[in-house]
Amino acid sequence: MTGTPSFYPDAGYLASVFITFEGPEGAGKSTAIRAVAESLESRGTQVLVTREPGAGDFGFKIRELLLHGDDLPIWTELFLFLADRSHHVERIIRPALSAGKTVLCDRHADSTLVYQGYARGLDLENLRELNLIATGGLKPTLTFLLDLPVEIGLARLQNPDRLDREPLEFHQKVRSGFLAESRREPERWQVIDASLPPEKIVDQILIALANDRPPI
Amino acid sequence: MTGTPSFYPDAGYLASVFITFEGPEGAGKSTAIRAVAESLESRGTQVLVTREPGAGDFGFKIRELLLHGDDLPIWTELFLFLADRSHHVERIIRPALSAGKTVLCDRHADSTLVYQGYARGLDLENLRELNLIATGGLKPTLTFLLDLPVEIGLARLQNPDRLDREPLEFHQKVRSGFLAESRREPERWQVIDASLPPEKIVDQILIALANDRPPI
Repeated sequence: MTGTPSFYPDAGYLASVFITFEGPEGAGKSTAIRAVAESLESRGTQVLVTREPGAGDFGFKIRELLLHGDDLPIWTELFLFLADRSHHVERIIRPALSAGKTVLCDRHADSTLVYQGYARGLDLENLRELNLIATGGLKPTLTFLLDLPVEIGLARLQNPDRLDREPLEFHQKVRSGFLAESRREPERWQVIDASLPPEKIVDQILIALANDRPPI
Repeated sequence: MTGTPSFYPDAGYLASVFITFEGPEGAGKSTAIRAVAESLESRGTQVLVTREPGAGDFGFKIRELLLHGDDLPIWTELFLFLADRSHHVERIIRPALSAGKTVLCDRHADSTLVYQGYARGLDLENLRELNLIATGGLKPTLTFLLDLPVEIGLARLQNPDRLDREPLEFHQKVRSGFLAESRREPERWQVIDASLPPEKIVDQILIALANDRPPI
C-alpha cells in the first residue's frame, strides 16, 4: 500500500521508508543526507533524496516565492508551504515509496510546526490539522533532528535566505520547538548532535538506521 | 476600522465597501466590473478594481501556477488559492478599504466554496474555516452573482484555461453551488441574469448599488 513502510531484516536496512531530516539551516542536513544516501545505495537500497520546499519544477517555483521574494504575510507563507507539501507528497514521495524506494527528505511537516507555530506563533493544533490535510496522513517513520546551538548554525551560513535573516530570538524558538516535538514523539525522532564534524553526524545516523527497528 | 464598510446615503453610493463579483467564466464579470467602476468613478467614488487569483506581482505568479501550469492535486490547488487570497486581503484589499476606496473584486472566497467544495467535493465546512483564516474575517458587503446557463457561458469563452476545460458536469455543479450560496445569505447576494446583454447587466448592478442599504 502506498506509504506503508516495510522493513527487511536480512538487508539490515530500510526500504519503502520515509525518513525526514529536520533542524536549522547550517546544521549540515544536506551534507548528511547525501552521505547517508550514498551509503544506503552502496548496499543496494534504492533511495530518493528530496526536500521541502522546492522539489521538482512546481516546488522550485513555490520555493522562489517563499525564500527569495518579498516579505509575505504569515498565513500566505503557511499556505505556500502547504501547497508545496501536498504536491510533493502526492506526486513525488508516495510514488517513490510505492516503487520500493527509501525517501530521504530535507524538511517536512515538522518544519511547519516549528517555524510557523513555535517561532511565528500560529496555533499548533491548527497547524497539525493543516499538515494532516497536506500530507494525506503520511508520516515519517523516522525523523533525524540535527540539533546545534543557534550561534553555531548561523555562523555556518554562507547565503542566508529570507528565513535565515530572522532575529536570533526566532532561531532560538526554532531550536526549542524542534526539541519539544522530538520529546513529544520520541519513538519517531532521533536527536543528533550536529556540532560534531560531518563524518561523525553521518556515522550516528547510519548507526541509528542499522539499529532501528521501527514498530511496523 | 480596517475593513468596516461605511455608507453615505447623501451620495447614494457606497464608499469603503468591499463588493465581489462571482459566477462562471463567460458570464461577463470583467466587462461588468469595468463599467460599474467607470460609473462609480464618474460620481466621485474612488474605486479599486481587483481579482482573485492574480492581483499584483505575487498574485500573478500564483495565477500562473494555478491556471496555466500542469494539472495539480486538489489540495495543492486549494492551498494556492488560499495563499493568493491571504496576500490579496492583507496587502491590497484592506489597505484600499482603509483609504476609503470601494473595492470591486472579480472572484473571492465564494469561488473557493463553489469550485473546490460544490464542484470538486471538498468539505464545505473545512473550506469555510480555511477561508476565514485566509481573509482574516473580511467578508464582502455585497456579492453579485452573474448567473447564466452553463452552455451559454462555455460558448462565450475564447481562451479557456485549465478550470474552463473541466467537463460539463463540473460547470453545472459550479452553477448550482453559486445559487445555493446565494440562497444561504440572501442579504449579501444579488443574483443577476447574465444571459442579458452587457449593458443590461451593468444597469441591474448599478440599480442594486443605488438602492441597496446594507445593514451596517
